[in-house]
Amino acid sequence: MEKVLDQFQFERVLSHDPRSKLVHILGRINGEHAIVSFEKARYADTDIPELASRTCQLVDSNHNNIYGWGMGTVKLATADTNIKTIYPATELHIRKYEHQQRHMIIETPDMYKQITLPYIQSLPAERIQWVFNILEGKSEADRVLYRSNDRETGFVVLPDMKWDGTQESLYCVAIAMRSDILSLRSLNRSHLPLLKNIRDTAYQLVKDKYGMDKDLLRLFIHYQPSYYHFHVHLTAMSFADAPGVVAGQAHLLDTVIDNIELYDDYYQRAKLPFTIGERHPLYLAHTSP
Amino acid sequence: MEKVLDQFQFERVLSHDPRSKLVHILGRINGEHAIVSFEKARYADTDIPELASRTCQLVDSNHNNIYGWGMGTVKLATADTNIKTIYPATELHIRKYEHQQRHMIIETPDMYKQITLPYIQSLPAERIQWVFNILEGKSEADRVLYRSNDRETGFVVLPDMKWDGTQESLYCVAIAMRSDILSLRSLNRSHLPLLKNIRDTAYQLVKDKYGMDKDLLRLFIHYQPSYYHFHVHLTAMSFADAPGVVAGQAHLLDTVIDNIELYDDYYQRAKLPFTIGERHPLYLAHTSP
Repeated sequence: MEKVLDQFQFERVLSHDPRSKLVHILGRINGEHAIVSFEKARYADTDIPELASRTCQLVDSNHNNIYGWGMGTVKLATADTNIKTIYPATELHIRKYEHQQRHMIIETPDMYKQITLPYIQSLPAERIQWVFNILEGKSEADRVLYRSNDRETGFVVLPDMKWDGTQESLYCVAIAMRSDILSLRSLNRSHLPLLKNIRDTAYQLVKDKYGMDKDLLRLFIHYQPSYYHFHVHLTAMSFADAPGVVAGQAHLLDTVIDNIELYDDYYQRAKLPFTIGERHPLYLAHTSP
Repeated sequence: MEKVLDQFQFERVLSHDPRSKLVHILGRINGEHAIVSFEKARYADTDIPELASRTCQLVDSNHNNIYGWGMGTVKLATADTNIKTIYPATELHIRKYEHQQRHMIIETPDMYKQITLPYIQSLPAERIQWVFNILEGKSEADRVLYRSNDRETGFVVLPDMKWDGTQESLYCVAIAMRSDILSLRSLNRSHLPLLKNIRDTAYQLVKDKYGMDKDLLRLFIHYQPSYYHFHVHLTAMSFADAPGVVAGQAHLLDTVIDNIELYDDYYQRAKLPFTIGERHPLYLAHTSP
């Protein structure tokens, strides 16, 4: 990595998230593209008691009664930055990290039939080969936390790549055995046994394995999902800014079950909002004349 | 502020958000409580082109093909930390910043009637006096962006305190003139003219004032809201991690309108999930035997 940083010639910022203090930068090394990502590290537990005394170059910006605001520079004893390098980087890498304006689309049942469903059906089957590999035990078998092979109500649970292993950031995914449910739009009363089985089993699994009660968990379904084979996300409530838990993308499993119990064909009749990047083929399909 | 930092005696961490790199610390000065908050600053535009060359003490942690991961220390040319001090701090301040476990409650219509509604009715009327001051033009009149005094469909729009003024983080709130809607639970077909008026006017207002199209906005209603006088939040889509946009708290206005159009009494019949801190009186009311 040292060599990459030493030879890196800055070109431009691909994206910059001011909330998490993460910046993805495009540059070149010997004429080839490289991407270097810098993210300010979380405060180390050992640094925290010293923060006040290690602050220098303090500049006050505002003062009001008992409140004061300012900026300064803090000398930390531990490494302050997480760094990731990609070299050589392809166009695909660049597109992945480049800032993309997201739009809200309010999908009517008709828009689903005319635009979204044909898009889903046009996706090559190989795209979800990795899902079948997991379901058939051919890959990631050692990571599977739970498995039931029932054709109707069966599913596997495995940790998501975003989970760092701590209880506060618990993130798992439950993937259905059956492959006839494309998305939320497909769900009806016939799927209630599967949905309830996933909910109840997930609660019990997390209770048994990690000692967490069900009211500390958020179970949700994405619309649009990133792959069209039915799956449910399980996250710790404390992971409140887990990617993709926002309204307009995440649908709580409990609400989904309730909607179907009250109104059989809710997900065939409802307008479903979704958020999507401006370069996504589905955005282009929905907005092209 | 310098004096507060100099004399600050560390006691304990109140809360620490590793995503935003923000820590609230409790300490003492001359026997009195003080709270100092440190947040790593976003990268300054002028620092970004220099990040690679200013990295030192690099430690590689992982390497795989074209990908590399590591940690280091980056010498920035600008102040790297935002600091806020509260001194002297009261018990109320401490409680505000102290980490609170959040729980998910799935509220049935019956739980609403038995527990939530009596709680709402028990709140002192003075709590929302500030809302009436805004509606009557007695306070914040210069901040109001839009006003319609119609008794049924009227509302005011004003910027939220969380909005820093940039288009990417747009955050406004629309507060209804009428005071007979406590929350989402109260909404039925008779409120559709108000809901649609807020939606359509907000879209037009943001288009006229800031040139932003409606598909770049997220309009939503909180359940539970922080005050029980009907209001709608308007945020930019790009403010994706605005506080309170998560599923289980935010309900998209478009979905609310659609649910009522399809099923008159949806919000009286549905189970509504909500997330709530473990020290909130409503959590205690719902969980006490």
